[in-house]
This record gives sequence, structure tokens and C-alpha cells, in this order.
Amino acid sequence: MAKERVLRFGLPKGSLQEATVEKMGKAGFNVSISSRSYIPYVDDSELEIRMIRAQEISRYVEHGYLDCGITGHDWIQENGSKVHEVGEFQFSKATRQPARWVLAVPEDSPIKTVKDLQGKRIATEVVNLTKKYLRQHKVKAEVEFSWGATEVKAHELVDAIVEITETGSSLRANNLRIVDTLLYSTPRLISNHESWADQWKRKKIETMAMLLKGALDAEAKVGLKMNIAKKNLDSLLQTLPALRNPTISNLSLEGWVAVETIIDEHVVRELIPALKAAGAEGIIEYPLNKVVY
Amino acid sequence: MAKERVLRFGLPKGSLQEATVEKMGKAGFNVSISSRSYIPYVDDSELEIRMIRAQEISRYVEHGYLDCGITGHDWIQENGSKVHEVGEFQFSKATRQPARWVLAVPEDSPIKTVKDLQGKRIATEVVNLTKKYLRQHKVKAEVEFSWGATEVKAHELVDAIVEITETGSSLRANNLRIVDTLLYSTPRLISNHESWADQWKRKKIETMAMLLKGALDAEAKVGLKMNIAKKNLDSLLQTLPALRNPTISNLSLEGWVAVETIIDEHVVRELIPALKAAGAEGIIEYPLNKVVY
Amino acid sequence: MAKERVLRFGLPKGSLQEATVEKMGKAGFNVSISSRSYIPYVDDSELEIRMIRAQEISRYVEHGYLDCGITGHDWIQENGSKVHEVGEFQFSKATRQPARWVLAVPEDSPIKTVKDLQGKRIATEVVNLTKKYLRQHKVKAEVEFSWGATEVKAHELVDAIVEITETGSSLRANNLRIVDTLLYSTPRLISNHESWADQWKRKKIETMAMLLKGALDAEAKVGLKMNIAKKNLDSLLQTLPALRNPTISNLSLEGWVAVETIIDEHVVRELIPALKAAGAEGIIEYPLNKVVY
Amino acid sequence: MAKERVLRFGLPKGSLQEATVEKMGKAGFNVSISSRSYIPYVDDSELEIRMIRAQEISRYVEHGYLDCGITGHDWIQENGSKVHEVGEFQFSKATRQPARWVLAVPEDSPIKTVKDLQGKRIATEVVNLTKKYLRQHKVKAEVEFSWGATEVKAHELVDAIVEITETGSSLRANNLRIVDTLLYSTPRLISNHESWADQWKRKKIETMAMLLKGALDAEAKVGLKMNIAKKNLDSLLQTLPALRNPTISNLSLEGWVAVETIIDEHVVRELIPALKAAGAEGIIEYPLNKVVY
Amino acid sequence: MAKERVLRFGLPKGSLQEATVEKMGKAGFNVSISSRSYIPYVDDSELEIRMIRAQEISRYVEHGYLDCGITGHDWIQENGSKVHEVGEFQFSKATRQPARWVLAVPEDSPIKTVKDLQGKRIATEVVNLTKKYLRQHKVKAEVEFSWGATEVKAHELVDAIVEITETGSSLRANNLRIVDTLLYSTPRLISNHESWADQWKRKKIETMAMLLKGALDAEAKVGLKMNIAKKNLDSLLQTLPALRNPTISNLSLEGWVAVETIIDEHVVRELIPALKAAGAEGIIEYPLNKVVY
Amino acid sequence: MAKERVLRFGLPKGSLQEATVEKMGKAGFNVSISSRSYIPYVDDSELEIRMIRAQEISRYVEHGYLDCGITGHDWIQENGSKVHEVGEFQFSKATRQPARWVLAVPEDSPIKTVKDLQGKRIATEVVNLTKKYLRQHKVKAEVEFSWGATEVKAHELVDAIVEITETGSSLRANNLRIVDTLLYSTPRLISNHESWADQWKRKKIETMAMLLKGALDAEAKVGLKMNIAKKNLDSLLQTLPALRNPTISNLSLEGWVAVETIIDEHVVRELIPALKAAGAEGIIEYPLNKVVY
Repeated sequence: MAKERVLRFGLPKGSLQEATVEKMGKAGFNVSISSRSYIPYVDDSELEIRMIRAQEISRYVEHGYLDCGITGHDWIQENGSKVHEVGEFQFSKATRQPARWVLAVPEDSPIKTVKDLQGKRIATEVVNLTKKYLRQHKVKAEVEFSWGATEVKAHELVDAIVEITETGSSLRANNLRIVDTLLYSTPRLISNHESWADQWKRKKIETMAMLLKGALDAEAKVGLKMNIAKKNLDSLLQTLPALRNPTISNLSLEGWVAVETIIDEHVVRELIPALKAAGAEGIIEYPLNKVVY
Repeated sequence: MAKERVLRFGLPKGSLQEATVEKMGKAGFNVSISSRSYIPYVDDSELEIRMIRAQEISRYVEHGYLDCGITGHDWIQENGSKVHEVGEFQFSKATRQPARWVLAVPEDSPIKTVKDLQGKRIATEVVNLTKKYLRQHKVKAEVEFSWGATEVKAHELVDAIVEITETGSSLRANNLRIVDTLLYSTPRLISNHESWADQWKRKKIETMAMLLKGALDAEAKVGLKMNIAKKNLDSLLQTLPALRNPTISNLSLEGWVAVETIIDEHVVRELIPALKAAGAEGIIEYPLNKVVY
Repeated sequence: MAKERVLRFGLPKGSLQEATVEKMGKAGFNVSISSRSYIPYVDDSELEIRMIRAQEISRYVEHGYLDCGITGHDWIQENGSKVHEVGEFQFSKATRQPARWVLAVPEDSPIKTVKDLQGKRIATEVVNLTKKYLRQHKVKAEVEFSWGATEVKAHELVDAIVEITETGSSLRANNLRIVDTLLYSTPRLISNHESWADQWKRKKIETMAMLLKGALDAEAKVGLKMNIAKKNLDSLLQTLPALRNPTISNLSLEGWVAVETIIDEHVVRELIPALKAAGAEGIIEYPLNKVVY
Repeated sequence: MAKERVLRFGLPKGSLQEATVEKMGKAGFNVSISSRSYIPYVDDSELEIRMIRAQEISRYVEHGYLDCGITGHDWIQENGSKVHEVGEFQFSKATRQPARWVLAVPEDSPIKTVKDLQGKRIATEVVNLTKKYLRQHKVKAEVEFSWGATEVKAHELVDAIVEITETGSSLRANNLRIVDTLLYSTPRLISNHESWADQWKRKKIETMAMLLKGALDAEAKVGLKMNIAKKNLDSLLQTLPALRNPTISNLSLEGWVAVETIIDEHVVRELIPALKAAGAEGIIEYPLNKVVY
Repeated sequence: MAKERVLRFGLPKGSLQEATVEKMGKAGFNVSISSRSYIPYVDDSELEIRMIRAQEISRYVEHGYLDCGITGHDWIQENGSKVHEVGEFQFSKATRQPARWVLAVPEDSPIKTVKDLQGKRIATEVVNLTKKYLRQHKVKAEVEFSWGATEVKAHELVDAIVEITETGSSLRANNLRIVDTLLYSTPRLISNHESWADQWKRKKIETMAMLLKGALDAEAKVGLKMNIAKKNLDSLLQTLPALRNPTISNLSLEGWVAVETIIDEHVVRELIPALKAAGAEGIIEYPLNKVVY
Repeated sequence: MAKERVLRFGLPKGSLQEATVEKMGKAGFNVSISSRSYIPYVDDSELEIRMIRAQEISRYVEHGYLDCGITGHDWIQENGSKVHEVGEFQFSKATRQPARWVLAVPEDSPIKTVKDLQGKRIATEVVNLTKKYLRQHKVKAEVEFSWGATEVKAHELVDAIVEITETGSSLRANNLRIVDTLLYSTPRLISNHESWADQWKRKKIETMAMLLKGALDAEAKVGLKMNIAKKNLDSLLQTLPALRNPTISNLSLEGWVAVETIIDEHVVRELIPALKAAGAEGIIEYPLNKVVY
């Protein structure tokens, strides 16, 4: 009897943990984490899950202790890990803005550009990224590792910080001004090159990538369905390119069709008024679990 | 370059806050409230959100500090605010009963009608509504403002209370008897008259009203889909007027159609047994995000 | 005027309470539990809800204090209650494994089979089930009631335990080994024989069973929709028997059809790659509230 | 080298756990409970702590799995455990009323005395105690084990309950009336007879009993110190027998003494006004960690 | 047999509740508040406790529904209650600064003095106090009741606020500037005039006042004990007037005395270095439960 | 007018924060931390508090941004900070064991001594300490920075870890074996050399060190008081050297003395039985706030 094969998969422990486990569930892989065991349960005997800090996942994937994992583009870069990038996800639905690492200073600081950092001191969690950025700008400055609460330090302890933000509101609340953006970061599915070369593992990774992507895409999308008189259909479709490739089915009521499509949720608020204006009736929006084109 | 216009929108802070932010999200406007800043983030640069106690929103809308806001009919009346009412919502899905302010007394109180309040003392959060109610009934009684825990006071500190309730269960748990209802209250979207007269603002408010209403209506509604033999269709539709205006599409299987409609969730529990009896098969109910007729 | 009839319904208090109330809501019966009253509110005047420990529900149904209730097969057996079983549900979506009561011992215990228990001591919450199991295997051993934390006792205080588990991970974390399975258990809707003989009550119970089952089945199922060229349809359906009885509707685009079906969620992760391979496009998966065949 | 001897000590897991660990700390034995291990740490290498439900401790002490433990008099009686009782403690400082198991019925129940229970049904956690009580009163009634929420059952599911209470306020809040008291219960330190016969273990147990008693007595006592003119001292001591055996020391101020004593905290509120009336000055009350006479 | 007399005592419900119940316990009256009953338990059968919002206590004391109660000087003034003030307490040990109601404006506001409020709008919870203050300064301004989150309003919704503060740090965090102080407030024990005229009640109230004051004073004080050579004693006492009226007792060691005194905790940090310099040895500081001079 | 001088003081943010603020309060400096401001309030206008991660404090003290701070010996060493060490504290009362950084491996690892680490990989938060330790033992191994959950890594991701522990129970719960101890660590009060050279700052720091030490020492000590007949006194004192330098005062009762002393709390459990055996009566133990010899 052939021994069952297994894929070792790293998920980020900590602040992203709950969200990631939820996404895995939406993709069809139910993970339960027990406080008594460091190995989570997953309802797929071909998977073994490990919860590891996002900062370290790329390192352990690169070393081969994990076949693959989900982590941020930022930490892959910071660690300089040589891994295969299988796919990119967009986790944060709330802000629809990618996370980014920015150079920030107090609002009243004389520092206006990266050039003004010459000879200064900068605190950050991403020491390598920051040093690389300074080298690119030919600026010499001291970069020190910050264990946390970095935003507070900018006012007294250092001259500038490099910190992560989405909407910038936490920086504003700390009276900090953004000087420059070093890096945009989104979650990535990565594997090591050896696992990727193994046919069974690669197929398993690709399936998971497809399902995760289907589940994550579905978070930012909705189904839209409406009825319209056939005579208005063309003008509706011309006016509204957002309704790409809709499913149009005949209704039993003569002269009417049902139009159904999948669209980005964030355009709904502009689309619905326009649809009504174009003659659509009985518009409904419904949620999706997965979208796979 | 034209400066971007902005609508200042008041949402209720406090016990309704979480539910309201969730509703806003369903309507397509993602709001995030930070403990560090009193200005919430919203992913629409044409909106500025302010979190204000429900009791005060109508006052600040009237004064023009807010263009519009969501608050209860009760507090608009209590404040006597002169505002434009754009729409009415029904928030509580759990009980399907509107909130109402009632006159309540201990179960063994001799007070049977409002007339028995003559010369008595009443505690309430809605002093103006209560005084108006007493005037209408030509009863003279002392009305005092209650800072909270009003139900407890009815047994010792005052003769009667005017308190808000949905199902009456909290009153019953306190051994209180409802004597009369002063006011039914539902959430309203209100704007001040000046903002309503401004064309840009009015259009923005109307769009938000449509989307909020679409999202809130969708909470109390579901999609229903089933297959039925064509020969049974007429009797199905006649028997079941609740299935108003269904979408009927032909199936590839000869002689069968798919029937799809949107109905109030709370009739489903009576409808499904009847549908099965009428020959429907493969009945599924699915959730909705928005319903716009 | 005829007095309204009422069905008294027992739901499990405690660890299953929140999940059960949520299921009731999905079935169309909104229950709210107040800390101030032992009688929960439900938005159906024909129902009266009582929250009772799962261990005791079958006893009170048998005695006639409740018309019906939801409890586990295990406790019906443990109590030896003579009740009518109306239906079986499958609550746990996460693990897709039924709960089961197992005989467990420390990993390094010499006990390998039930026979080795002769003369030993066993701690369990299900004393009657355990005694019956021992009788069946003609083993004499002492069985003592455990008030909780049973897993810890196996190492020092007793020789073996009979404990409930789904995935076995809690047992493993306690370094325990499963020797045998005594009983698989799923939630059941039960009624007493007298209530079941009453026509009005039976009809009400059957309706609730249908709706609860529809809601619970829906948790483990999803809707799947895709477009496919007609020429590929037959091969798609042949290859994929999981797509049983799909709804196929013509699209206005010549030569294409929409295929829609309801399937078990846990096969989606294998099905979607296969569907794509068979030529399906625009695959979407959407959630369901109820499924009634 | 002689192997170090160890005493295995059972402490009640659950609602009393935190209080018991705190008392142990006051007695001089610091216990820390980790969620990762079932064996708590204690800073005394001669002790091994086990956390076990109060209901079961006497059973495991009797069987010899524990040398000794702290549990309630009620559960020793309920289990009929043959153990040596080393000492009695009084844990609840708040109410200064011993816990007691009472027979309770709804306020409007016709049951007035135990005799009225003939042929009725009673729910309780202490089945054996209740059966013994009924036998003593020559009453035949059905006694069933209650898994919890016993108070709620008295109104519908059974005719009476036997439940634990201190102040009776929870029973009153449930509109229950106390018919009789079956048993008063306080925490006890118990050991099995064999451990008690072992000289080393007995000495260790006696020391722990002395220190625990010293710590617990100290919770209900305070130190009181005051200055008084010598001429008033005799009348002070005669008037106030509560000041038993005070320490009286001379002050350097001629004609004055300092009086210091240990008294029950709950008499302080009556004593201080009397002390002032008798001429005491500069009265201070200070807390105690231990009191050993 | 004479019926036992009872004193009805109001304690502040809400944010001060926990602290007040703790103080009552330190004074010797153990209060337990149950979520099931609005009448707390107290271990003194001559007392009945009622938990009432601090804002309302003086009103119900004045009306005679309560004999006495603890509330703030601010709310007695705001309500204009005619009550007897029995005693003043100082609750906040942390800041050692009395609470005060201040007039505050945004840091960059043109308002510099109360005179600049002419024609402006002010939000506050203490409408009457604010109106009185404006009258005293002959300023006409609109005062509106604020239901909470007053600090946030100062930036947009009104021109100024009147808000309570201790250290001012919350105002500073909101970028507000204090213009003036309207009222300092400390907790008071008040009774109504009728209860105060009743001899039994007055005695009971006075005893409680003495014990509460003894307990509260003790929070801000500590006991200090040290040894010193007799020859250094005089210079020690002359140098350190803070050591008022110490208890000096002879030690058995020739030429040495023990000095013991009660002092304000906040001077300890200056006193201990000075004591050491003056020759004191073995200085210990110990906590106090009550101090009654 | 002279400007008031200020000492900038760093306290550890994070897991030690609450304990440290409590210690500061016991020393006489009340610190309150607001979620709205990064500068805590302290009731001493000569102090400015900054909350900084323990890992970073020594760095900012060395750089002069802080005058002084409290941090662990481990992080001073890890950072290689050149600072003046003013005093050492012992924070953990529970275990009475200093924290220590240990080299740990899985229980079944072949690694028995540091020498076996040659060519292996080690994860730790203290990279510099670990590298130095390896150099001292002339072992070459890879050391990687661990962002947390280090204990879990030892089983799969690396060959060994260097982790902090007090009782070792967390390591045992993770089935890890301690190979060696690298460093014992206790909290230290440090200042930079410049601040220490400033007379005003040095005096302030020394006073704080004295008060903090007095408060911390008091946590591990208690006061003990007893009465004894004079004739037994000498033998008591000879037998019990732990009673060093007691205060002995005459009682008014002829032939008796009161003996009072300060001792380590953890010897009380052995001392009290001995004291009773030696004839002591009325033994009381009382808590201390500060002890300054």
C-alpha cells in the first residue's frame, strides 16, 4: 500500500491568524487550532498545518521545513528569501488599500525627503528593507530594530520611522507625516523550489492556490441579478461596461430577460442607481463563497 | 480644479454603533472606528462620518453641523427637531417588532390608565414626550429625567416609568405591567433642510438612502428557488400569492421550469411546507445582500 | 374563540446553546435568551422554549414536561428514555466527523482491549452506557461518575476513561490512546409519544423538523453555478456524477448553457479543478440558508 | 542519599479554584496553574498538587490516590467517604454565613414541610444526601440528579429542589421559598487514614493545616492599635471584653499606654465607636496575613 | 418585640460602583451585587442598599426615598438638592487631585476667558451649574445637555464644553485647553433632614460616616515604624514635624527606642531618605485598614 | 525663577508593564497610563515616564534619550549597552527563582552538551548572547532570530533554542530538555553615565532606587509579632537565628515580652511551627509596604 503523501503548509500566527483560518475555511479547508497542541487539525489528510510568525515563514519555506506557506511580500523581501511565488492575494476587504511600509516623521519635523535623513537615526521592524532603501537613495543613516510601538518613538527617540499602514489613520492619530513609501505588500502563497518541482506537491499547491484565490476574490465580489425588458437590454449593456459577460436567460414573461453577473462589490454603490435609471427591476445582490473564472 | 464635495453624516454612537457600522458596510460603505481618533475612516472620500449619541443627532443635523444622520423617530420627536425625513428603516430582525416607549407600573400598582397618574411622579429618559402625552390626556404629574436603570425605579422611587421596549420581556422580568404605548419608533435617515436643497448633497443622500434601504430590506428577505412541473405551475402560483412576481425560466428538462422569487424571511417557515405540498422540488433558500425594487 | 395551542420545546443549555440558537434562527425561529428570565423569547407564539442541559432533555421529554427537544443520541441512550425520535441532524460542520464516546487509556498502558479492563476502574460521564458496554463484553470493572476533566484522570486516578471526542486531538494532546468506540452520537429531535399522537403537535413538530433539517443540511452544502458550451455538457455530466440533477438553462449566447446545482461543500475542493478541466467557465459558489428536497 | 518524600495534595478545580490558590499563597505555598500542564507548580518540593473537582476529592483521598485534600463537608457526606478530617476552614468572608443545602419550592407551592413531599419529584446535585434526609423523615419521593440550573427547574420540571445557598438571595431572585435546611457545609482538610498514620506525612499535613488555618483566620481578623491614658485603661478593658488578652506597652509619654489586639473584623464597626467613647485615641486597624494562637 | 429599624442607603451605580462597594467593605460593610436582583445583599440587617446613578442620588435622598447616600458635591449642586451634608471623602488615591468641572475649548480657539462665550454654544452634562456660572459672569450663551463624549464635541459641534477632569490628561489628549474651573467636587455622605432628626438613624449614619472616613483616610496613609538610638531621638523629632505625635516605646536593647507613627503615604518618598539621614534604622512601612483619630 | 528639573525614566512596556506600574505605586509614585496618550501621568512633577519595550530600554538610556530606566540584565547584555547599573531588583515573588536563559532541545534529541551543537541551527530572541556563548565554547552553529513561539520550533524547525524560563514548566510542557544555562537575569535600575554625573539627577535616581528597593524587598518579607515569657526568650533567640535583630518590648503583664521582627516570607512556613514549639503565643504575621534597613 502506498504511503499517503503530505504537504506541509505554513500559516501566519498572531494578528493575521484568525483571518487566515477563516479564509482557509472559505477555501474548503477547515482548520482548528487547539491551545493544547501546536499542530492544528485540518480536515484534509494530505495537509499538515504549521502556525508560524509571518516574519519567519519565508525563511522556513526556503530552508525546506515547510513546503509552502502564506506570508507577506514585505517579509519575503526583508528576509531576502529565495522562494517560488505561486500567487498573490488581497486580504483586506475593509480598506481596499494595500498595506505599505512608509517613511514617517513628526508633522513638524524639518525632514521633507529621504535626502534629509543623512546622519539621522531611524527605527523600524524592517531593518533590511530600510537599509536597502537608503542605499538606493545614497543616504547614510543609522537604522535600528524596533520591537514595537514604533510610532511613538518618532517623537522623541529617533528622527524617523519606517512603519506599516493601510489608511494612514494610525499615523495621523500620532501626528506623523508620511514622507515616502518604500514598499507595497500583499499576502503571497510561496513554495520552495524543490517542493514546486515535485509533481504531486505542485498539483496540490496549485489546487489550494486556485481555491484560496476563488475564496478571496469572492470576498470582494457579489452576484447581481435583475430583470429587464428585452428592448432595454442593449442600451443597458452598452451603458454599463462593468456588467461584463453577463448570463442572460429568457423569462416566461414575454419580452423580459433576467440578467445576472458577478461584479466588484465596491462598484455596486455606483452601479445600482445607474441600473435603475436604465430600466432594471427587482435588482438583488447576493453573496458569494468562491469565484473561479 | 474643483474641490471635492463632502457630505457630513452622523451615525449613532453607543449601543447601536456596532450594528449601524455593519449596516453601512452592507450598504457598501466600509467604516472603521479607531480608539485613537474621533473621526472614523470610511472608504468613500465624499463622506465624512461622525459618531454621535442617538439622542443628539437630530439636534446637530438641525443646527447644520451634520448634513444628515441616522437616528430614531423617538429622539427626533423628543428634541422637537425640524429636519427633513428621507427614509425609514427597520433595524431589528430578531424580534420583528418596532421599538416602543411605554408607560409601565409595578404589576400590583393601582394605576390602570393614564388618568390614574394625576399627582404622581414619573421617571423617564424622554421627558418631553412624556409631558406631551400627559398634556394630551389632561393629566398633571411630575416628570423627572432618569439617567438610566429606569425599570428598577418603578418599584420604589417613582410611581410609573416611561421606558423603551421591543418584546416587553425586560419589563416582565422586572415585574412591570404596561399601561399604555406613547410612541412607536424606527430608525430614520434625516437631513437638514439646507443640505436637502443642495442638489449634489441631495443626490448623495438619496443614493445612500437607496443602498441602505436595499441592504436593510435584504436582511429581512431571502431568495427562494425551486423546480416544478409546468402543469403544476398555475396552481402553485394561484395558491401562493406570496410568490409575487416570480422569475420563471425554462429548464432543459422538458416540461419543467425553475421558479425564483424574493420573499420575507419570516414567511418561509409557513411557505416551504405548502410549496412541497404543491409539487415543488429542490427548494433552496439563499441569503441576500441587497434588494432594490 | 379557540385558545391558541402551544408546543413546549427543549433546547440544550450550555456549550451547545449558542450554536443551537443560531441554528434555530436559520430555520426561521428567532430565539433571544435574557439573563434576567429563564424563559427565552421566540418570535412564534405557538412555541415555548426551555433551555435545559443536554443530559436531561430526554428525561423531561419522556416525562411529558416538554413536548419535544433537541439532544444527543448519547444522552437518550444513557438515560434509557422512551421517546419518539423524529429526526437526526449533523451539527458539526468543522470536522465532518460524528462525535463518539471512546474507551481511552494512557499511551503506555498495558490495556489493549476491553478484556484487559477486568477488575479495573473507569471514570466517565456516561456511567450507564459504560456499564452496558462492559456487560456486553462480559467484563467486570468498577465504573465511577466523573464530574469533568476526565482526560486528566486517566493518568493517575483511574485505569481508563470513557470520554467523548470528534477528531481525537484532545485525547492525543493528553497522551491518551483510544482502545475502542462505544457509541457514535448525533443530535436528534425527539418528542414524547403522547405529543406525537396529538395531530396539531405532530404537524408542528414535523414542520420544525423539516425547517431545521433544511437549515442544517444547507450548512454543509453550497450552490454551484457555471457556464459551459452545449457541446461539452454531456461529457461534463458523465464525468461528474456529483452534479446530480442540475438545473440547466439556456443562455442567450448561442450554444451555451448555465448549469446550476447544489452539492456538499466538502467536495468542492476536488470538483472545481475537475470542472475547469471539463470546460466550465465563470464558476461561482454561493452560500445557502436552507435546502429542502 | 535518601529520596525526598512527597505529599500529594488535592485542591478543588472549578469555581473555588482561584480562591483556593490564593489561600494557599497566603499560607505560604505559591501554586501556579498552567493551561499547558495538568500538574500545577508549587514552590515546595515536598508537595505535589492535583486540581480535582470538589465533588470528587474525598473519593480519591479515600482511595489513596491523594494523601490529603481540601473539599466541602457536603461532598464528603454525599460520597460517604471514610477519611480523616484534619481541620475545618471558613472560606467566605463576604457573607460570614456557612453554605447550606436547603429544600426549596416555588413561593406559591402548597408544599410547606418535608412531609408534603410524599410522592413528589425532587431535583438535586446531592442525590444521596437528599435520599438520606427523606428516609429520616419517612417520606417516599423520587430524587433525580440535576446537572445544573437546578433553581429554574423548581417552577416547572420538578416539585422541589435541594440546592446550595449562602444568603438565599439567588433563591429569592428565582421566587423560591426555603422549606428546610438539610446540611451546613464548610471546607475541610481531609487525609486518608494510611497517610495520617505515616509520621512524616502527618507532620507535613499538620503544618499545612496550621498555616492554612492561620491564613484563613487572618482573613476574618484585623489588628487594632490605640493609645489611652493609663487611668482609663481598666475601665476600657472591663467595658470591652472583645479586647481579650491585649498587648499593653508603655509609651514614653508619661501616663499613657499603647493597647494592641487582634479581633474579628466584623465587630470593628461596633467596637470603634465604643473605643472612642472610652477615651481611646489614634485608633488604627491594620490587615493581617496569619494569626496563630 | 420591637421591629428592627432599617436605614436606606444609596450608593452610586456605574463607573464608581466597584470602587464604592470596595470602600464599603473596607469600612466593614460587605455588599454583594447580584445581576439577578436590584437589591444588593449587605451583611448588616440594619442597612438596605440601593444602587442609583450618582446624578440622581441627591434627588432621592431629598425626596425621602433614601435616608442617606454617597454622591458627588457636583451633583448635589447641579440638582439644587436640599440635604444635610454629613461628611466629605477623598476617593481618588491615584492622582491626589480633586475632580473639577472645567470650561474647555480647542487649543487654537479664540476664546480666552468666560467673557468670550457671549452668544456661543456650550455642551455639558451639568446644565444648571453652567448656567449659574454664566449668570455670575453676566454672559449670555446657549447651554445644551450633552449625553456623553463631550470632549469630542468641542472641536466641531459647539464652541466650548464644561467637563469633569482630574489631571487634565484626557483634555490634553483631545487637544483642549482649560479656560476656567467652575467647581471642585469630592464625594459626600448626605442625608435628608428628616432622617437626620431621627435619633436612631442619625446615630447609625454617624457611625457609618466615622467608619467610612476611617477606611478612606487609611487609603492615603501608612504606618511607619523604625528604631533609633535615644540620643538621636530629639533631633529626629525636631527635624521632622511630619512625625506628629509618634508612639515611642522602649526596646530591651539599652539606649534604643522604637518610633511608630501614621503619616500621609505621599510624603513617605521624601521622608524615608531624611529618616535614614537622621539615624533611623530598620524602617518599615505597613498598610492600614482604618485610621480614626 | 529656577526652572524645575526633570528626570526622564523608562519603564518596560508589554508583559511586565502592569507589574512595574504596580511596583512604582508601592514605591510611592502613582503612574496612570492612558490609551489616548503615549506619555503616562505620574504624580511627581520631577519625573517624566516613558513606556518602552524592555528589549530597547538600555539602548535609549545609553543614547541619553532617557536618564534612567528599569530593564532586565539580559537585555543590557544582549544590547551590549554601556550604562551605569544603579541597583538590582527581584520581581517575581511567585517562584522565587531568577529568570534564566537556557539552551533547550527536544527530550529525545541526541544533543547532550553545547559541543553537540556544532553545525546546527538555533533559534532565539537573544542572538548576541547566544553567539557569545557559542564562541566561549568554541562551537560554530547558525543562530537565527526568533520572533516568538520559540519553544514550538525546537521540535521541527531548528535543532535547539535559547529561551527564557523560571520554573522550566513551560519547557517541560513542550517536552523540551534543558542542556545548559547561559545567563541568569534580574531587573536592574540603570542610568546613563552623564545623568549619573549630574548631582541633582543622581540624588533623584538614588532616592527612587531606595524606595523601589524598599517596596520590592517588602514583597518578599513580612512582619512577625508574638508574645513570649521572658524566661523562654533567650532559648527562642538562640534556636532561631532567622529572628535577627528583633524588637523586644516589655508588656505590662509581668514576665512577658513582645517580640517583633521582619523576615523572609518563604521561611514563615518553617518558622511558625518552631516558634510555637519554643513557647511563643499569639503569633501574627502582617504585610509590609516597604522595608528600608
